[in-house]
Amino acid sequence: MTTEEEALVRANDRSHVFHSWSVQGAINPMPVAGGLGSEFWDYDGKRYLDFGAQLVNLNLGHQHPALIAAIHAQADRLATIQPALANDVRGELAALVTDAAGESFAKVFFTNGGADANENAVRMARLFTGKRKVMAMYRSYHGSTSTAISLTGDPRRWANEPSDPSVVHFHGPYPYRSPFYSDGPEQETERALEYLEQTIVLEGAATIGAILIETIVGTNGVLVPPPGYLKGVRALCDKYGIVYIADEVMVGFGRTGEMFAYQAHDVVPDLVTFAKGINSGYVPLGGVIISRAIAEYFDDKMFPGGLTYSGHPLACAVGVATFGVFERDGILAHVKDMGERVVEPILKGWLEKHPCVGDVRGVGLFWAIELVKDKATREPLVPFNASGADAAPMAAFVAACKAAGLWPFAHFNRTHVCPPLVITEEELRRGLAIIDDALTVVDRALTVADATTA
Amino acid sequence: MTTEEEALVRANDRSHVFHSWSVQGAINPMPVAGGLGSEFWDYDGKRYLDFGAQLVNLNLGHQHPALIAAIHAQADRLATIQPALANDVRGELAALVTDAAGESFAKVFFTNGGADANENAVRMARLFTGKRKVMAMYRSYHGSTSTAISLTGDPRRWANEPSDPSVVHFHGPYPYRSPFYSDGPEQETERALEYLEQTIVLEGAATIGAILIETIVGTNGVLVPPPGYLKGVRALCDKYGIVYIADEVMVGFGRTGEMFAYQAHDVVPDLVTFAKGINSGYVPLGGVIISRAIAEYFDDKMFPGGLTYSGHPLACAVGVATFGVFERDGILAHVKDMGERVVEPILKGWLEKHPCVGDVRGVGLFWAIELVKDKATREPLVPFNASGADAAPMAAFVAACKAAGLWPFAHFNRTHVCPPLVITEEELRRGLAIIDDALTVVDRALTVADATTA
Repeated sequence: MTTEEEALVRANDRSHVFHSWSVQGAINPMPVAGGLGSEFWDYDGKRYLDFGAQLVNLNLGHQHPALIAAIHAQADRLATIQPALANDVRGELAALVTDAAGESFAKVFFTNGGADANENAVRMARLFTGKRKVMAMYRSYHGSTSTAISLTGDPRRWANEPSDPSVVHFHGPYPYRSPFYSDGPEQETERALEYLEQTIVLEGAATIGAILIETIVGTNGVLVPPPGYLKGVRALCDKYGIVYIADEVMVGFGRTGEMFAYQAHDVVPDLVTFAKGINSGYVPLGGVIISRAIAEYFDDKMFPGGLTYSGHPLACAVGVATFGVFERDGILAHVKDMGERVVEPILKGWLEKHPCVGDVRGVGLFWAIELVKDKATREPLVPFNASGADAAPMAAFVAACKAAGLWPFAHFNRTHVCPPLVITEEELRRGLAIIDDALTVVDRALTVADATTA
Repeated sequence: MTTEEEALVRANDRSHVFHSWSVQGAINPMPVAGGLGSEFWDYDGKRYLDFGAQLVNLNLGHQHPALIAAIHAQADRLATIQPALANDVRGELAALVTDAAGESFAKVFFTNGGADANENAVRMARLFTGKRKVMAMYRSYHGSTSTAISLTGDPRRWANEPSDPSVVHFHGPYPYRSPFYSDGPEQETERALEYLEQTIVLEGAATIGAILIETIVGTNGVLVPPPGYLKGVRALCDKYGIVYIADEVMVGFGRTGEMFAYQAHDVVPDLVTFAKGINSGYVPLGGVIISRAIAEYFDDKMFPGGLTYSGHPLACAVGVATFGVFERDGILAHVKDMGERVVEPILKGWLEKHPCVGDVRGVGLFWAIELVKDKATREPLVPFNASGADAAPMAAFVAACKAAGLWPFAHFNRTHVCPPLVITEEELRRGLAIIDDALTVVDRALTVADATTA
């Protein structure tokens, strides 16, 4: 690995690769030379602990031997076959996924990723109910195809409007910045449900086909629903004949210590969308897990959706291998253990230690640290949707992490702890120590700013 | 491979796999045990010549050794990395693709497939022009996500309406069933362009951001545009400040004997969408090839779209290998030779030989045979969008092909000849002989029907 190689990668990238969500002339993406487990490295051999797991995708880490072996084996058997034929690994994975989701589920519709999973779940719900409107949350992300970006409740939607005209956004619970003026989780649940029901009634229950919710809001803040909230949503869906769609693209497949995050909330959705963790994105794959009732609805009716790569054998084979690793290596127990014994106590300690840490929240290996200018006012470290100079304090935090060998997940005024689920305790503690130090840099900047103002 | 294995595949499929574009209870997909080159086989070892190439996807056939080798090599190097970082094969493929597309192109935005490629091309065109309306053809297919299915001009759109409200459909040229009452290709071009310009004017040129066209209409009939048509479309786009998007998801990467089909029409689009043939779908991949002007527009403006798997290294590595095979094995020359020397003369002979063959048309290894009840009236063998008993004559044709060891591509009253591009002359002649016999079955049924009526 030479400087020359790195220069070629950079040149091709800058000349010919158009990047997601970017001002193309303002970026200079780092060439990655390789990865293994919870680390990846550049062409100088500098290693980074991967605390974002490549957009919360690589649940089993970089280059997991069992997953790579599955690619080799399936590539030699049959890379792909069209969706209208039957294929062994496609059926095997569908059986594993429905089984893991719970007994009320019957079938899986495989897609290429999370966006088209959400598109197809909404399509199913609209046809099943005969009602077109879909409710989704502010502070959510559901993908960037037309209906998926309409469902999205963050600024990425704005430049794409108007798109799907039958989407309505509502506020979800967020105890740290409650939109309901609540005094804690219990009241937050109560008021969030009361608000949701009022909104359903005012929008017209007879017009609403689905409510789509990230079981735990991901990129927009690791917002774990307070106790009882999802159960309340389920009850409202039942009351008003609305399909409950759980978006588990980020949290499915072990991120929270459950196979699916809803399983810790005593609730069963009608449709569950997934991608990423099902096979750590080694081969693009997503899908919709379908309740028995909705699957049966389409037994004698045409489902008007499809795609060439649906149930892609190479992708499905890596999914089957993923289930094997989860079982063999006790991934779920490891995630719970790391979350409860390592992450939670350290992060909660930061609430005392760091002036810039306003809130910490999460579960399993999915945590957010919310940075503020002032603990009392809770003013965010950087404004909502900040960029350029406004975002400088977060950029300084990110730079400090990278310099110390950790690649953080940063969004607005938050950093998330969402490494591969296979991360060792040593790596986890090492990474958290780097974040700890970087937070001290932020603290110091706040103190300087205070002194300057004073 | 035992009956027991086959039974398990079938059972998992029927219980747990939800299929594209299907009445789920009415199908019984055949389990496929393997494939190689232009053939695949079932669990009894019965082999089928693949004349549909798995939805016109496997341009280099089943299990091409060079592509499988690329999967192995890249899996061992790095299966995936997020889109915000730079990656060697991602950049290498982007450079190869832009180079193949022509000098006016600068960058590639990689997606997961054709639908999200079209979604993102439309997004770029809307932002670049500041105009939201998109014109697309009747008798077209562009994918099944929300905007892509709105763009689609075939019955698959119907159950998804209303979706993207800013799409307008227009009629394209179709000499055999001219919507313009023309007397041949030249008049068809002239009238189709006059009609298109009137439609642009009446819709309001100031409201139209893009015209999206399959360079050769694919599933809806292998409608090769008559000479001058695409050049005329290009001129209208220039005149009215409209972005010309070429959907080359089916025809890109050699299907017509050119790398891109538009290259035979003396025309350069502003955006080109692709999927399938870029890597024969061995790993899901699609994308948008972007003109220099549009790429530069986003140098200082945020592009509001993205996806986790954009520029997936495993997928891109197979794309790079595909270019190698095209070069080494002279795929384009082979396609032209097979089309001109084998397919065209045989199919044109059927116009005389078979009472049921109303029209044949195509180029390279992309041909349609249109079946009719009566050559004089051109009444289709089965009604538009027929299903069940109405579609029985086509079902009989398909069954005859399958019984003889050929898996045909059938749609409405047509069968298409679109095998892998690596098909040998012997395989091609053998497959066409099977179709020839199956057409005789159709002829005979027509004669019997005539006798019964008389």
